[in-house]
Amino acid sequence: MNPESITCPLPETVHETVLLAHGGGGKLTHQLIEKLFLPAFKNPMLEARHDGAVVDVSGASIAFTTDSYVVKPLFFPGGDIGSLAVHGTVNDLAMCGARPLYLSAGFILEEGLPMEDLRRVVASMAEAARQAEVQLVTGDTKVVDRGKGDGIYVNTAGIGLVRPGLTIAPSRVRPGDAVIVSGDLGRHGMAILSVREGLEFESRIESDSAPLAKMVASLLDGGVEVHALRDLTRGGLSSALVEISEAAKVGIQIEEDKVPVGAQVAAACEILGLDPLYVANEGRLVAFVPAGQAEKTVELLRKDPAGAGAVQIGRVEASPEPLVLMRSRIGANRIVDMLSGEQLPRIC
Amino acid sequence: MNPESITCPLPETVHETVLLAHGGGGKLTHQLIEKLFLPAFKNPMLEARHDGAVVDVSGASIAFTTDSYVVKPLFFPGGDIGSLAVHGTVNDLAMCGARPLYLSAGFILEEGLPMEDLRRVVASMAEAARQAEVQLVTGDTKVVDRGKGDGIYVNTAGIGLVRPGLTIAPSRVRPGDAVIVSGDLGRHGMAILSVREGLEFESRIESDSAPLAKMVASLLDGGVEVHALRDLTRGGLSSALVEISEAAKVGIQIEEDKVPVGAQVAAACEILGLDPLYVANEGRLVAFVPAGQAEKTVELLRKDPAGAGAVQIGRVEASPEPLVLMRSRIGANRIVDMLSGEQLPRIC
Repeated sequence: MNPESITCPLPETVHETVLLAHGGGGKLTHQLIEKLFLPAFKNPMLEARHDGAVVDVSGASIAFTTDSYVVKPLFFPGGDIGSLAVHGTVNDLAMCGARPLYLSAGFILEEGLPMEDLRRVVASMAEAARQAEVQLVTGDTKVVDRGKGDGIYVNTAGIGLVRPGLTIAPSRVRPGDAVIVSGDLGRHGMAILSVREGLEFESRIESDSAPLAKMVASLLDGGVEVHALRDLTRGGLSSALVEISEAAKVGIQIEEDKVPVGAQVAAACEILGLDPLYVANEGRLVAFVPAGQAEKTVELLRKDPAGAGAVQIGRVEASPEPLVLMRSRIGANRIVDMLSGEQLPRIC
Repeated sequence: MNPESITCPLPETVHETVLLAHGGGGKLTHQLIEKLFLPAFKNPMLEARHDGAVVDVSGASIAFTTDSYVVKPLFFPGGDIGSLAVHGTVNDLAMCGARPLYLSAGFILEEGLPMEDLRRVVASMAEAARQAEVQLVTGDTKVVDRGKGDGIYVNTAGIGLVRPGLTIAPSRVRPGDAVIVSGDLGRHGMAILSVREGLEFESRIESDSAPLAKMVASLLDGGVEVHALRDLTRGGLSSALVEISEAAKVGIQIEEDKVPVGAQVAAACEILGLDPLYVANEGRLVAFVPAGQAEKTVELLRKDPAGAGAVQIGRVEASPEPLVLMRSRIGANRIVDMLSGEQLPRIC
């Protein structure tokens, strides 16, 4: 593993064309949001920099979110673009503390796509929606000429209902909070990359892609005072922690030997020179809860199949400036920075 | 004009690959929805076959819709992909009788896109949102490799609030209803095509792209009992009328000499062998209202700049089977069918 090459900051140049890294969930994505989108559309919902917006509609507190999915290949071990498009958007709603209710689906199909591929993706979306207990209620299909797409791109948007009075947001994170992840890291990204790079292991790495809303609901039903949640997608754990430390203006200290990484993922990362902290997950979250509720949170998460590997990996500390530190197995502290450049394009 | 070549039905073959026509808003789009999407995702909201879904959230009646935009070129006379992506989704909400409130935006950018193009599109979206009085509150950006996109694709989803007790839907259309269009037809499609084909006219054809929600609100505020609305996008007036006649199980009779088409659009259609009834609009609607309110409806529509050319073009008739007829200038009746094949790919 060579984290230095990843954490070395890119120069703050102005990029005159769009780079793959602008979609990577790291520094350039962050710059695009801060310098282009936020100034254009400025409003408090966007400025909350959450996974979704929470808006008031006729007295109800509604979460609203969107994601496009351009993953390559369309079908991968443990999932496909259809189930991913349902899980990703359901999870963004869950990260706002919302119960996901309805999804939309917008397809951009490439001329010449085998109809059977579309059928498989649609069937997978329908099954994922059934499992996540959401209804897909509206949609749209566009077709682009051959060579102007890549089979199927899907956008899903979702709306969900937030419990009255509930606010789950980075701004609620406090020094002392426990930092808990719901399972082992890096499986989604390495499942995709193993297929693309033709890596062979004893058994194949399966994506962790899964819906997380019921797990979040069980925390809330169980009385856990959840301060913040983030699903660990593009940019991985590191980007999520850096974003939250910046938004909450706190330090975050994690322990390397607590961060769960499966043996196969660790081996694949080693071979490819990647750091699991930066690899995307599609069924993992980080939760910030009061220290006194850490044990209960881990117990509740472990009752869900997607949370069986839940564990506390660190805690929030008061800090003069936002900073994420990881104490290594030999006791040295390393600064965890956001992903620079593009590690792995078209992972979701 | 050669309408026969357009209305000639395609054989009902099973297509084993996706064709451009599957995204054209005509028969193949219809087949894809009926045979693939509806059976997979079956629920009453989808089965209403409306421009958007109307769902109940915590007692509020909320309209929810999505559209992806793949128009080529990105910038065209009278608009660009950014303003189009706002107008199109705002209008779908308006067609459900909803007041548009919030939009999401999902960008799929092609590696190498000039950043300046993105800036222009985002600025245009922000201005269109301001004019339409909606807030863009959540978004997502993905980047695909060079040659796997075409500059910018945008998806917008939107949520809006439907007045309590209001139902605007094809099922409410009744024999005797007046059929009213809000202005001249075919400008959006012909603006795009003129650019693509390099057609030169004395003055250029500008897209009609415009937000229609305020116009709809003025009808409702004015006490018009609006039965159904449809914006005349892909597939044009003909597809909208056929869909409504099928959903409402009624006949629709329109008069060719009442259907408003500008001289330049008519000339361009003549040159290219297109029928303006099938050409896409992005700022036009058809309204079905009780006959006694036709005059009032036209008056109210004409108060809005986008409705200045509003006119009644026909009426609904009882019919043993769904049928749309157009009486020509010489008095002959012609059957108006849905668009077959793809007239004009990537128009929106």
